[in-house]
Amino acid sequence: MSDMIEVFDTTLRDGLQVEGVSATVEDKLRIAEQLDYLGVHFIEGGWPGANPKDIEFFARAAKELRLSTSTLVAFGSTRRPKGKVDDDATLRNLLDANTSAVCIVAKSWDYHVLNALQTTLDEGEAMIADSVEFLAANGRRVMVDMEHFFDGFKRNQEFALRALEAAVVKGASHLVLCDTNGGSLPNEVADIVQVVKRHVGNDVIIGIHCHDDTGCAVANSMAAVLNGARHVQGTLNGLGERTGNTNLTTVIPNLQLKLGYACLPDGRLERLTAVSNHVAEVLNRPLNPQAPYVGTSAFAHKAGLHVSAIARAKDAYEHVDPELVGNGTRFVVSEMAGRATITMKADELGLEMDGPAVNQVIDDLKRLEHEGYHFEAADASLELLMRRATGWEQSFFRVESMRVITDETTAGDFTTEATVKVWVGPDGTATRHVHTAEGNGPVNAIDKALRAAVAEAYPQLAKVHLTDYKVRILDGATATGAVTRVLLDATDGERSWTTIGVSPNIIEASWRALEESLVYGLLHASA
Amino acid sequence: MSDMIEVFDTTLRDGLQVEGVSATVEDKLRIAEQLDYLGVHFIEGGWPGANPKDIEFFARAAKELRLSTSTLVAFGSTRRPKGKVDDDATLRNLLDANTSAVCIVAKSWDYHVLNALQTTLDEGEAMIADSVEFLAANGRRVMVDMEHFFDGFKRNQEFALRALEAAVVKGASHLVLCDTNGGSLPNEVADIVQVVKRHVGNDVIIGIHCHDDTGCAVANSMAAVLNGARHVQGTLNGLGERTGNTNLTTVIPNLQLKLGYACLPDGRLERLTAVSNHVAEVLNRPLNPQAPYVGTSAFAHKAGLHVSAIARAKDAYEHVDPELVGNGTRFVVSEMAGRATITMKADELGLEMDGPAVNQVIDDLKRLEHEGYHFEAADASLELLMRRATGWEQSFFRVESMRVITDETTAGDFTTEATVKVWVGPDGTATRHVHTAEGNGPVNAIDKALRAAVAEAYPQLAKVHLTDYKVRILDGATATGAVTRVLLDATDGERSWTTIGVSPNIIEASWRALEESLVYGLLHASA
Repeated sequence: MSDMIEVFDTTLRDGLQVEGVSATVEDKLRIAEQLDYLGVHFIEGGWPGANPKDIEFFARAAKELRLSTSTLVAFGSTRRPKGKVDDDATLRNLLDANTSAVCIVAKSWDYHVLNALQTTLDEGEAMIADSVEFLAANGRRVMVDMEHFFDGFKRNQEFALRALEAAVVKGASHLVLCDTNGGSLPNEVADIVQVVKRHVGNDVIIGIHCHDDTGCAVANSMAAVLNGARHVQGTLNGLGERTGNTNLTTVIPNLQLKLGYACLPDGRLERLTAVSNHVAEVLNRPLNPQAPYVGTSAFAHKAGLHVSAIARAKDAYEHVDPELVGNGTRFVVSEMAGRATITMKADELGLEMDGPAVNQVIDDLKRLEHEGYHFEAADASLELLMRRATGWEQSFFRVESMRVITDETTAGDFTTEATVKVWVGPDGTATRHVHTAEGNGPVNAIDKALRAAVAEAYPQLAKVHLTDYKVRILDGATATGAVTRVLLDATDGERSWTTIGVSPNIIEASWRALEESLVYGLLHASA
Repeated sequence: MSDMIEVFDTTLRDGLQVEGVSATVEDKLRIAEQLDYLGVHFIEGGWPGANPKDIEFFARAAKELRLSTSTLVAFGSTRRPKGKVDDDATLRNLLDANTSAVCIVAKSWDYHVLNALQTTLDEGEAMIADSVEFLAANGRRVMVDMEHFFDGFKRNQEFALRALEAAVVKGASHLVLCDTNGGSLPNEVADIVQVVKRHVGNDVIIGIHCHDDTGCAVANSMAAVLNGARHVQGTLNGLGERTGNTNLTTVIPNLQLKLGYACLPDGRLERLTAVSNHVAEVLNRPLNPQAPYVGTSAFAHKAGLHVSAIARAKDAYEHVDPELVGNGTRFVVSEMAGRATITMKADELGLEMDGPAVNQVIDDLKRLEHEGYHFEAADASLELLMRRATGWEQSFFRVESMRVITDETTAGDFTTEATVKVWVGPDGTATRHVHTAEGNGPVNAIDKALRAAVAEAYPQLAKVHLTDYKVRILDGATATGAVTRVLLDATDGERSWTTIGVSPNIIEASWRALEESLVYGLLHASA
């Protein structure tokens, strides 16, 4: 029988300390739903009082969220030095959040008690004891985040253990050992958790909360579990201040698939990749493609030799079956692609390709990727390139010319207008269409004008719309003279696809990607 | 006395398997120089023969590189099954690379010998023995990368150890244990390295080569070192296939600063951040801001409370002194900034700010960051915003209007032309300048036209030029109608600065960033 490990997610509190991200209350509610869908035990929603948004979050969560698996937790701190629990604003806000469980941060490093709080060690201990007692008396399950625990333990072990005892004696359910500065290594964490486990016994659950400043947050968390911790705190995608918190999307599958602990309810681990991507999207913070388990590159294979070997025996080349975490094996087509890769891809697309056509594709890929194209990321453009290598040409429309004008008036207002002239239909029977459209930027304007010009002939385009637009400046060092790579995502409601355009001129790059996006949509609508 | 750990860098071989990166021979030479400057022991330059570029690399390296610290290593494999060493093309190419040390990959998992090589275990062993003997007889120092060693050891320990013995007996200097699929955890690595160490004794150096598929590559490498390995392979910035290789920019400071091993020559560790950034730039692959030790966020502090506390006692809030790795403490100004942060920043800039001005800055930051501005990344725009809060206004120039036109002709050629009308000089004595310029894209064209219009009055602008241009689509999900954030880096040769512009219209966003960039340049040139 496997031991259970509680997963405590702090994406919505500690995770949002990451540089460059800010989340609305609406965003936070959507993330909480995802966490419940994934099946974590606890969702720390925020620090009511420290942040006005977080008071609103807990109020709306109580009304709007229907959590089926997870328990919502409000975060706060111990009472202030020399204060009383009854009139402490922080504790009051914590109760007002009205969650069944709370988590409070307490100082367990003597230095911080003496210097940051500017009080005595006895008062530091009393702050913990009083606060836990007060919250427990008010019916809350009380977890205590022992801030700077490992640093404190190394300097003054006696006080660090006193801090733990103060919480246990007054009824804390969890002692969460925090590596707040993130500087600890797995061997130290293992040793210290062992001492703590011997000291507090089985009266309380030991938790672990790490930061990734040594690149060891995941390993530190596992070292704690192997020495008696049964509660792991972390964030989705390793979001968090500085180098981030323990990445739950890594530590959960490590614990569950490799060490045999139960972390999520049955059948939930396979949701991991989808939830990781969903949260990245909500926060508009692209997922690291190299992220273990959930990244798009995590099970991607590139070298020509491997592709055929992997097809024969996946478990000899992949450390786990990617489907267990909702990811998949991916064979990457790039300039380094061999003939086998292109042939496999053609089979996947149902294209007949002879030898010369395969060679043509390999040559085109080499030349275009040298110019800055990147077909790994643009499935639809790759398919069109492969089709062209077999002699196919699109006959939906042919662009005669395009112009886009952006004006700033004296008042500082910007207007943008695009005109396109297009021949629609196969050569011979094509008709000329001229359309002008305004947009809130040049790419928006050309998109509107081109669609208007071809819409009459192809009503099926009404279903196709763009879902994402990404711009990357290649060789940024030549600044505004550099090459621009544009990726466009589109969908027709059934399938989604990505096209690419590359040019020193961002308008041209966008225009190429846009043309291919519509062609791909027409091709598969008419098939 | 501290033990020494050899650092073996494989950025130029295994690192370049990372998805989305391709490097020229010139890029590789520049990276090798950086590695030597950092002071790694070994630089693995590539696999001559498997890749034609790599033959050229070793030829040019022999002529052009002047390495003062590092030894260049060529990579290859053991001879082919049933073949002879004398006529083996791989071994021949390896000798032709003409390096004093070579590293060959050998199969130590029985499954791969039997199924991938389709030969017997005896022949698998002979391939290793013969190849090591041949290379050693040709005067090479021979390191052997034991592919899939940990997986192999777990399935067939006897064969894995036979593979090691075959190499040692024939004179290999290093046995490098590779976690090729990246699935191992630190406790397993520790146990297995212990067994190997007992088995091979001190006749040979044990090395470790990990991949990050469990997020534990760094921890696994340290576990190996703590159990007897004295040679660590990895890549700068964790580049590599799938989830990447062991990140040397993390494991080196961990080993050196925290475990007391000597990895780099004295005085070199402080070059780590610069080298990491340089290599990211050469490969045009932005450094992860959250990277331990070297990332821009690694020592960044955001929460209002902390800033003042950190100023008092850095070692209570930072796990190491960032200057030891060439990084620095950074206080981040954002919508979450408190008054203390703004006041500290004003002091840093030498600005006198009274209470109302500080409040104005906080209000402006909140409003603009809500719109999509992000001042953490744009120091110059932040400074201008703070100056404006004190009542300052720029009087260098005032734009009357701007227009930019992009045309696609029937032949598919794109031309772009911008016209700006500007009043130059302080109100009252200002003169009107109208300039038109062509560019290879709209932003390039407006940059040229604006500079031309103000150049006569401000010759000091000749020194100012743009060095980087970044575009980010915010809320990409509304596609081409989304908000665009532009960041522009500029320099006058002495200082560098970044400005920001945000708008649904990419031209407007670029234009705002461009205007501020020139204003900042003029402000500091005339100061």
